[in-house]
Amino acid sequence: MQGWAPAARGSSRCLWLLKMSVLFLALGIVLFMFRSVYLYPESSSSKAPLPQPSLAAGMLKLLPEEHVESLFTHDGIWLFPKNQCKCEAWKHQESYNFENAYGQTDLPAVKMRRQAEFEHFQRREGLPRPPPLLAQANLPFGYPVHGVEVMPLHTIPIPGLQFEGPDAPIYKVTLKASLGTLNTLADTPDNVVQGRGQKQLTILTSSRKVLNFILQHVTYTSTEYQHHRVDVVSLESNSSVAKFPVTIRFPVMPKLYDPGPERKLRNLVSIATKTFLRPHKLMTMLQSIREYYPDLTVIVADDSKEPLKINDSHVEYYTMPYGKGWFAGRNLAISQVTTKYVLWVDDDFLFSDKTKIEVLVDVLEKTELDVVGGSVLGNTFQFKLFLEHSKNGDCLHRRTGFFRPLDGFPNCVVTSGVVNFFLAHTERLQRVGFDPRLQRVAHSEFFIDGLGSLLVGSCPDVIIGHQPHSPVEDPDLAALEKTYSIYRANTNNEIQFKLALHYFKNRLQCAT
Amino acid sequence: MQGWAPAARGSSRCLWLLKMSVLFLALGIVLFMFRSVYLYPESSSSKAPLPQPSLAAGMLKLLPEEHVESLFTHDGIWLFPKNQCKCEAWKHQESYNFENAYGQTDLPAVKMRRQAEFEHFQRREGLPRPPPLLAQANLPFGYPVHGVEVMPLHTIPIPGLQFEGPDAPIYKVTLKASLGTLNTLADTPDNVVQGRGQKQLTILTSSRKVLNFILQHVTYTSTEYQHHRVDVVSLESNSSVAKFPVTIRFPVMPKLYDPGPERKLRNLVSIATKTFLRPHKLMTMLQSIREYYPDLTVIVADDSKEPLKINDSHVEYYTMPYGKGWFAGRNLAISQVTTKYVLWVDDDFLFSDKTKIEVLVDVLEKTELDVVGGSVLGNTFQFKLFLEHSKNGDCLHRRTGFFRPLDGFPNCVVTSGVVNFFLAHTERLQRVGFDPRLQRVAHSEFFIDGLGSLLVGSCPDVIIGHQPHSPVEDPDLAALEKTYSIYRANTNNEIQFKLALHYFKNRLQCAT
Repeated sequence: MQGWAPAARGSSRCLWLLKMSVLFLALGIVLFMFRSVYLYPESSSSKAPLPQPSLAAGMLKLLPEEHVESLFTHDGIWLFPKNQCKCEAWKHQESYNFENAYGQTDLPAVKMRRQAEFEHFQRREGLPRPPPLLAQANLPFGYPVHGVEVMPLHTIPIPGLQFEGPDAPIYKVTLKASLGTLNTLADTPDNVVQGRGQKQLTILTSSRKVLNFILQHVTYTSTEYQHHRVDVVSLESNSSVAKFPVTIRFPVMPKLYDPGPERKLRNLVSIATKTFLRPHKLMTMLQSIREYYPDLTVIVADDSKEPLKINDSHVEYYTMPYGKGWFAGRNLAISQVTTKYVLWVDDDFLFSDKTKIEVLVDVLEKTELDVVGGSVLGNTFQFKLFLEHSKNGDCLHRRTGFFRPLDGFPNCVVTSGVVNFFLAHTERLQRVGFDPRLQRVAHSEFFIDGLGSLLVGSCPDVIIGHQPHSPVEDPDLAALEKTYSIYRANTNNEIQFKLALHYFKNRLQCAT
Repeated sequence: MQGWAPAARGSSRCLWLLKMSVLFLALGIVLFMFRSVYLYPESSSSKAPLPQPSLAAGMLKLLPEEHVESLFTHDGIWLFPKNQCKCEAWKHQESYNFENAYGQTDLPAVKMRRQAEFEHFQRREGLPRPPPLLAQANLPFGYPVHGVEVMPLHTIPIPGLQFEGPDAPIYKVTLKASLGTLNTLADTPDNVVQGRGQKQLTILTSSRKVLNFILQHVTYTSTEYQHHRVDVVSLESNSSVAKFPVTIRFPVMPKLYDPGPERKLRNLVSIATKTFLRPHKLMTMLQSIREYYPDLTVIVADDSKEPLKINDSHVEYYTMPYGKGWFAGRNLAISQVTTKYVLWVDDDFLFSDKTKIEVLVDVLEKTELDVVGGSVLGNTFQFKLFLEHSKNGDCLHRRTGFFRPLDGFPNCVVTSGVVNFFLAHTERLQRVGFDPRLQRVAHSEFFIDGLGSLLVGSCPDVIIGHQPHSPVEDPDLAALEKTYSIYRANTNNEIQFKLALHYFKNRLQCAT
């Protein structure tokens, strides 16, 4: 019996060791599991099944349409992308369906011509723009999200390229362009960088530091003379692909005007007007200008029958074919301006001490506005334009009033259209122009053409007068005014023509 | 001794167990280490020190400048970003330093005025553009890299928003905008989405599925009437931040022309010209037009002393102040065009059976060109323009020749400038315009103003003739031609004026 004692003692010590080692083993395994689940969730998660939001599943619903409409409605218009926009008469607004300007028999052919012309326009403008590039999550690359631009045939360094993926014995990163070629300013052996000066550049190296040095100095070269084109450059490693745009274009050429050393008003502003069959009104207007601005250049476009004699060395007088029309004359007048700004006035306006051109100049000098209107005897004629896109032509909505006050000028506002008394940046005004196809009554057509090009403001405190409508005694002048009034009438044909022009030229569908 | 046997047997069995368990333990630990290093390198790498590329460090050098220059040099010009560009006379080219057009005493003041005007121009154009947004690597978000656009005061859904970060008991994602407001079309309890309709939107949920549903339906609303502005929207979770641009702008309004049901040439093309003190040349040109194109509208701008009588119902005749100038007249003429295309001709050209306008129309209809020139008795006057940016004004380089053949028209090429016989998209031509400040000899000035706006081509096979330079018998006409030749002379003052215009208006520094 005694003999067992040591054995027993031995086996118990062994059991203890056994227990301890099993404990360690278990601990190791527990630690192993713990580590994998909690310390590196991003790695384990990749295998973990998606969480089951039993409660959440019920929550996956969208707001009811009427709620979305109420959220994004402005001035009674739901400004949210739709397949089809409508022009429902709103409050006291009328609504126009521009198709009606054409006969039902002509319409199908007109629609086809309009679509063909629109496609040609889009092709030249580079439209429709490509859909947004979507970045995937967890890409191992740094890259420029947007804003990389190159002039045709020029080379630019591409900023921000970087690789931060997993360590690997060998790194392989491939860049691909489609319109231009790629290279790197890094000086490396040929086996490290392949495809220099080609559309596909491949980097092969065992050093992350070398890889990123090469990436930091990658260049893009525009190899064809192209303009307003977007190349999508891709950056690949294993299954990860990052894409970013490179825009190929020339910058817009500045067209600056020298105001001269003294910044005299006559070196900054010209006055432009159009006249037709009412010389007495024009002369009265010119006299009123000279009372306040003796030396400003005044440009007059005249499509009357008889040319006038105007004895004023600062008046430039142009004659046009008889009755060529209202916007043709306006376009002629602004085409001759050589100063930074041009002030538009009608030929029957009247300058007064409230007609402060300097104030309007100050507004354009200190803001980003392209056009700023005053008021004609208190009438500012402010209106806002809204556009809704749709497949078969856009919907245009017009509302009286303004969008917001003008920063820095508490008495002025930002709007879409103003009265026929405004100061404009000459170069901007010429870019939009007055469509010479509009021969008779026309006004807001100019501001519609200017949508997207002109930022318009209105300052009611700058006021111009209007000559009285009282009939003239002189029989010849009376006769002229009679003829004038015929041309001035907004006939039904005129209206039909303008509606057709909106339908075809501006590719509008309807308006309210 | 025998008594020991069982004990010995017992202890040996124990030792075996001990060995096995230690083996397991070791195995567990080895497996543990192995797993951490090889199965999840991306997690371990985050702690691992950067690799030491002892060999690589030496490789981190850039290509020598002369090599970079040779890589990116085109037509002898190094087209690569530099702080300062130069205009070194190249081959037989002369070089101009535009500053020299001003007196040294005036120059400092001129420079200040030019800088002030340039800054005003940039402010209105939204320049300089913001630097490229750089995406960091390994962001847990999907998002739109570029191309998201919204009209002022409109709302758009933001595509591609997604969260693919680590699992967590609670997900918190924050979106921030600066110019507009954010919302989501997802219908959720208030505690899940906070800040609807505000500049900061916060999503709090325990369900990844719910989070991504909400993200997929996030909207951006432009709340102020702004134009050509870029808002940078950020998407944040913990320390990860993704940023993407939302551009606020109106689309450019189309200005389409209806070619009419039969697509008659007279409904597609008008001819425009400018004349001065040589009626006989103009009349000869008009007669030659009528031989081949009896009913095309011809627009004539005339700044001679005496107005002409032209008996042609399809000629529109405009008179200008005497000697108003060459580009003023050209600008007047194109301001009156009401057809899709306008053909420019000088008043001393001569139409022949090789003057095929239809061919030029076909080129503009089928390509993206804005302007296509023909040849005057074989002279195409093709030249290329290159621009280099620099702080104090850009460098302009002019080289004869063309960039590339025109796709689809093997006999035509793409270039920057052509001869005074070209067909143009009326609307594009009017957008650039002919600067009325250029009164006398001027030609390439128009194509310089058009850089960035006009894509120009040249088709030598369409040929117009030129009237003989032989002197006239008629003494009156001879007198006129004598006066004409005085105006036509490119005097030193004229040249100085043009150089000054490039310096101030186009903000150019020099040219070769």
